[in-house]
Amino acid sequence: MPFSPIRKLTPLATAAEGRGVKIYHLNIGQPDLPTPQKAIDAVKAIDRTILEYSPSQGFRSLRERLAGYYKRFGITLSPDEIIVTSGGSEAVLFAFLACLNPGDEIIVPEPAYANYMAFAVSTGAVIRTVTSRIENGFALPPVEEIEAQIGPRTKALLICNPNNPTGYIYTPEEMEKIRQIVLRHDLYLFSDEVYREFDFSNRPYVSVLHLEGLKNHAVLIDSVSKRYSECGIRIGSIVTRNRQLREVLMKLCQARLSPPLLGQIVAEASIEGTEEYSEAVFEEYKARRDFFMEELNRIPGVYSPVPQGAFYTVASLPVADAEDFCRWCLTDFAFADGQVTGTGRDGKPYVAETVMMAPASGFYSTEGIGRNQVRLAYVLNRGDLARALKVLRAALEAYNSR
Amino acid sequence: MPFSPIRKLTPLATAAEGRGVKIYHLNIGQPDLPTPQKAIDAVKAIDRTILEYSPSQGFRSLRERLAGYYKRFGITLSPDEIIVTSGGSEAVLFAFLACLNPGDEIIVPEPAYANYMAFAVSTGAVIRTVTSRIENGFALPPVEEIEAQIGPRTKALLICNPNNPTGYIYTPEEMEKIRQIVLRHDLYLFSDEVYREFDFSNRPYVSVLHLEGLKNHAVLIDSVSKRYSECGIRIGSIVTRNRQLREVLMKLCQARLSPPLLGQIVAEASIEGTEEYSEAVFEEYKARRDFFMEELNRIPGVYSPVPQGAFYTVASLPVADAEDFCRWCLTDFAFADGQVTGTGRDGKPYVAETVMMAPASGFYSTEGIGRNQVRLAYVLNRGDLARALKVLRAALEAYNSR
Repeated sequence: MPFSPIRKLTPLATAAEGRGVKIYHLNIGQPDLPTPQKAIDAVKAIDRTILEYSPSQGFRSLRERLAGYYKRFGITLSPDEIIVTSGGSEAVLFAFLACLNPGDEIIVPEPAYANYMAFAVSTGAVIRTVTSRIENGFALPPVEEIEAQIGPRTKALLICNPNNPTGYIYTPEEMEKIRQIVLRHDLYLFSDEVYREFDFSNRPYVSVLHLEGLKNHAVLIDSVSKRYSECGIRIGSIVTRNRQLREVLMKLCQARLSPPLLGQIVAEASIEGTEEYSEAVFEEYKARRDFFMEELNRIPGVYSPVPQGAFYTVASLPVADAEDFCRWCLTDFAFADGQVTGTGRDGKPYVAETVMMAPASGFYSTEGIGRNQVRLAYVLNRGDLARALKVLRAALEAYNSR
Repeated sequence: MPFSPIRKLTPLATAAEGRGVKIYHLNIGQPDLPTPQKAIDAVKAIDRTILEYSPSQGFRSLRERLAGYYKRFGITLSPDEIIVTSGGSEAVLFAFLACLNPGDEIIVPEPAYANYMAFAVSTGAVIRTVTSRIENGFALPPVEEIEAQIGPRTKALLICNPNNPTGYIYTPEEMEKIRQIVLRHDLYLFSDEVYREFDFSNRPYVSVLHLEGLKNHAVLIDSVSKRYSECGIRIGSIVTRNRQLREVLMKLCQARLSPPLLGQIVAEASIEGTEEYSEAVFEEYKARRDFFMEELNRIPGVYSPVPQGAFYTVASLPVADAEDFCRWCLTDFAFADGQVTGTGRDGKPYVAETVMMAPASGFYSTEGIGRNQVRLAYVLNRGDLARALKVLRAALEAYNSR
């Protein structure tokens, strides 16, 4: 399986921490904001003697809440059209298993979320990527380039919107282009919209479920993980108005019996009465985005288009090989300006700092593209973000004057 | 996907309940015994502000507990050899995805747990079954019959031990035969041992992890669901000493990010300090087995070999088509002897009773085999089991004198 340079870095990070180096983790999308208290309270208040199977489709009460949630975005759904999954990951895997046969092809704009690739490979499907370019701000590639990849075995187009890793959000015009491609070639349209809440674009949000005429094509992949900072509960969903496809998906869901019971209790409690929470989270991420992007683009030689959504950005760095630079930051670099920024696990103060980033090569399948790029997640508090950028600037200077 | 006659019965059961008919569910393996209180208390006591991702392999503390658990059965494992999954189902699915390519074949003694088939089909693998026969008490089929199914594309042998649906437990001699087949043909040996705790055989328990020389072949599928009545938390595991295979499995695990956080907290609290609980559960299931099997085999024309483990049995009934009989029990039959046995969801007393069973045809892939058989799960309290058997006896009489 391809696409995992970041995994090789993990033991290096552990070793650096062992040497007393504090690491700013710009490499992962683990939100640092608290889960809504009422959601945690819901599971603490469970009054059950048996933690038994829940329905394979997920609790109806949760699916009703989710239908109400989509209503806020102008999407009308029946709870029957929603299938609760064990995280967005299971939603992606089951969508692949249900829609694709071994050898079938799926088109994905790259850079793309690396885990899609692992699942596609494991199910025998073939991913064909079309490159979104940093110089175009990671906009949708031209329609001709997308259609050039479509062949007789192409079964689906997969988008992530808002995008992980780029933070790009497709415009209404781009969504219309996607709609036409899907209809012209009769493809499934898988759309991962787990970052929907973090849309800083001031444009109307266009979901695949808003698009006309895609009743049998559109498959929404969703998750409560990011929007309520509850990645650990493993609650996602597949939403489709295609009844036949739901029947196939339900066979997979029945085979795995049920989604997590306790996670469903947390998710159900998260959806209503959390408007203030969601607003505060939105404002915090937006403020971080504004701060982070401005400072990031001030570092000499660094360029990153300002992302309109999610909490990631892809930046090009003034290095030839970002993978080597990311490794070097963990093995050979440590920043120390005398400021003590906390204590390590062993109770001793950190003596130095560095940054961990995800080499963007892990998000491309086209050989040689994005080699000077990294993905940065800005899910640290602003103090840490400021410090991380200071360290990154120093690291680039040191790396380039070796 | 094949293998799901039971799904067709579910709406009929709902309709019967709507008519005020109480249904004894002999069709499902949902334990009715309580989850250990200390496990529920553990999740009620969580002190976290973020419900964040846990490690892809599962918490080390849980894996250490599991290693201690296996030690009780004389199996020495390092926590590194254990991968925590989202239920035993994910363990099966990932084992298939990691070990089999589309078109690869897997040998399974039938009758077999139907969900294996759904996963195998969805991943493009081919299941080849070898029939265990009721007249032999569902013992391992002859080695020659198993080897006759092995061809160049055969990659694995899958057993379920103690068996769902038959309750059969392989003898040490049978396990030795399995070991030799696996070595002779260099196959993976997947062994689902989730019913390990419910072994009434008084013989030494033989796990695939006890077998000599299978370091690279043996893959244990496990789950805490049944042993602690916590099916809803979705915590299972894959255990293998094959390091290379673990690396492939970990790629799938990393792609799905993490197993359920809250379920892991419950599972970890279930493993130690629950010896009394486990003993009581064992005694209860054993007493039910003894009572149920004796009464079941007293019904004229009914035969079922006494299962040595799990909480299922497969019985042959004096009917030509058990699927038709199971359907008829829900649509055309209602038992009423004047005894009031509870109240329905609408608050009214039940006016009649019937039984729901799983037609065994769903567990066979060989056409025409097991047509007069059903799978019965004895996870009801003894009062209900007695009543269910009375109803079943009356149903058979009525069905055969139509």
